[in-house]
Amino acid sequence: MSTPVRIEVGKRDGEARVGLLHTPHGVVETPTFMPVGTKGTVKGLTPGDLRSAGARVVLGNTYHLYLRPGPDVVREAGGLHSFGGWKGPMLTDSGGYQVFSLSHQRKLSEEGVRFSSVYDGSSHQFTPELTTRVQEDLGADIAMVLDECPPANAPRPYHEESLRRTARWAERCRQAHTREDQALFGIVQGGLFPDLREESLRRTVDLDFPGYAVGGLSVGESREEMLEMLALVAPNLPAEKPRYFMGIGDPVGILQVISLGVDMFDCVLPTRLARHGMALTADGRLNLRNSRFRRDFGPLDPECPCEACADYSRAYLSHLVRENELLAHRLVTLHNVRFMGELCRRAREAIREGRYGAFMHGWISRYTGRPR
Amino acid sequence: MSTPVRIEVGKRDGEARVGLLHTPHGVVETPTFMPVGTKGTVKGLTPGDLRSAGARVVLGNTYHLYLRPGPDVVREAGGLHSFGGWKGPMLTDSGGYQVFSLSHQRKLSEEGVRFSSVYDGSSHQFTPELTTRVQEDLGADIAMVLDECPPANAPRPYHEESLRRTARWAERCRQAHTREDQALFGIVQGGLFPDLREESLRRTVDLDFPGYAVGGLSVGESREEMLEMLALVAPNLPAEKPRYFMGIGDPVGILQVISLGVDMFDCVLPTRLARHGMALTADGRLNLRNSRFRRDFGPLDPECPCEACADYSRAYLSHLVRENELLAHRLVTLHNVRFMGELCRRAREAIREGRYGAFMHGWISRYTGRPR
Repeated sequence: MSTPVRIEVGKRDGEARVGLLHTPHGVVETPTFMPVGTKGTVKGLTPGDLRSAGARVVLGNTYHLYLRPGPDVVREAGGLHSFGGWKGPMLTDSGGYQVFSLSHQRKLSEEGVRFSSVYDGSSHQFTPELTTRVQEDLGADIAMVLDECPPANAPRPYHEESLRRTARWAERCRQAHTREDQALFGIVQGGLFPDLREESLRRTVDLDFPGYAVGGLSVGESREEMLEMLALVAPNLPAEKPRYFMGIGDPVGILQVISLGVDMFDCVLPTRLARHGMALTADGRLNLRNSRFRRDFGPLDPECPCEACADYSRAYLSHLVRENELLAHRLVTLHNVRFMGELCRRAREAIREGRYGAFMHGWISRYTGRPR
Repeated sequence: MSTPVRIEVGKRDGEARVGLLHTPHGVVETPTFMPVGTKGTVKGLTPGDLRSAGARVVLGNTYHLYLRPGPDVVREAGGLHSFGGWKGPMLTDSGGYQVFSLSHQRKLSEEGVRFSSVYDGSSHQFTPELTTRVQEDLGADIAMVLDECPPANAPRPYHEESLRRTARWAERCRQAHTREDQALFGIVQGGLFPDLREESLRRTVDLDFPGYAVGGLSVGESREEMLEMLALVAPNLPAEKPRYFMGIGDPVGILQVISLGVDMFDCVLPTRLARHGMALTADGRLNLRNSRFRRDFGPLDPECPCEACADYSRAYLSHLVRENELLAHRLVTLHNVRFMGELCRRAREAIREGRYGAFMHGWISRYTGRPR
């Protein structure tokens, strides 16, 4: 079966791998970090900024875009690419994670999940058919099936029921999906139970999606637990298809998931940290509010060629952050996106050269070794 | 006496005039609108954005920069040009207007004015000597004398006393000013009393500054009253020196002050309106929150080549404004700055071609004729 999105897997180093992700809007080197443009914009940046910062795939959130401005408006604009001006590859989630993490009033049934909008409390229902249709309206290169994200501490029978319902929803999404220029990815759930992860994997892979995600929980799991689950699941995903780990974006975490064979990952963390004045560097996070930056006239990150590092000093950026100036958010976001892109580039290089393990450990030890 | 800032006056049309303002950081065609970078940044824009939007002189506010990050930090950075990265001509006010409009707890004396910081209530005193030294630390091309901005409704004897004190302060500023690469401009005050304006003009011009501003009041005057005062003062200012009208930035107002022979003006209005989702167009202000823009996929302003108008639709910008997205502030600010620059360019063209009156009336009638 031909698919609009496929991966050409290249060099492997242990489980880690590089690849070329082919999409209707271009080819992307993997592993790749995908910045999140929740409401059709990565906060503060233009598409041109994103390109210059090295971002290659941008994510949109269906939950938010469904509520505001609504899929009808985006469809009439010609889709999210046309609406927001990002012309490269794009991925939308199904909105499931936001329903389970943001909307506290919700009611789950076989049909779907009813929830109250975070904006105005109005009532909505996401069904597999609806989120698929909405994502077709948004028109990203990659759409996701609707999955339930139960809390980590739900009892085992709940997780069993949940993963089976998620698998039935996945089948309904597949049936509902019609766009030939968009790939629909499946999601492996199963909480923190190895055998349930295995069952979810089997049920999802049986549906033969062009790509697979490993999904998280709505709340409560630790990093270690998630990585354990990923280590069980990833090697059993079809090697010839793209693998997407949802919701990880701290530098240490992405190096770890890359080592387990993941190709794509997204998270709001690098951009949200930026808006709190936290800049990512190879020596760890810098809190630009720290008083030691008030008179530091050196560049934010001497190793980085981005606009924030090339044109301004730490002292100026620290001033902007303290004053909560719009330009602070913009410049530090640009830097953090650039930083994540560069980290992925270096990871790919290390994989190609067969030294990923050493690279990862060296990098993590520098990043975490000097607390700031 | 040689001065680092001078104007070469060109074609005149009635009182209106074009000119070339020579400064240590470049030559600027006048009349020119100066966007305000209160805290060392025009909110949301980089210096590159400002240049591309046609801004040629940027203003910094001494009140804010004195309090945050402090003149010592800016001086150590090498001045405001180096600190914030704007390499073109720059002007700083003296902070007087902010003391009288923002700091409600204040105590005025011959020595200066004591006030409480809007940031933390801490007590400070601005004297003519201090604001001059602070502006030398900031290092703009043009610095301003410290003036009192009394409320419009203060009794006449108060205005008399005030303008004479302002004149004595101007003399002290002149004495204190030492930088040879910076021009210090005088300010004509005098409230809404024609004879007091005349007295203030004479006292200020007697001090022989390289340029003159006409100052406003801290609160309470109408547009018509200010224009009346300006019409009295402007023709009596030395014709061979630059004329700066402080604190006007609505399109109609700047066309009016240009017609009275003003070369430079500043205001936060175009950039502040932008952050409220109001875009300036030749047909008036557009409120992007208006529901009629939700599905308007045309450009913000079809006559404008700026990034906001070239790359996005009204529907997208309206979405960003409703969601209070950082990118909304940035893009609409860029547009409004571009709009003001273009308006000045067209005004200069009309003056050169001897048709300024017709241009101004036609322009104002289009701008105000179709309320939005």
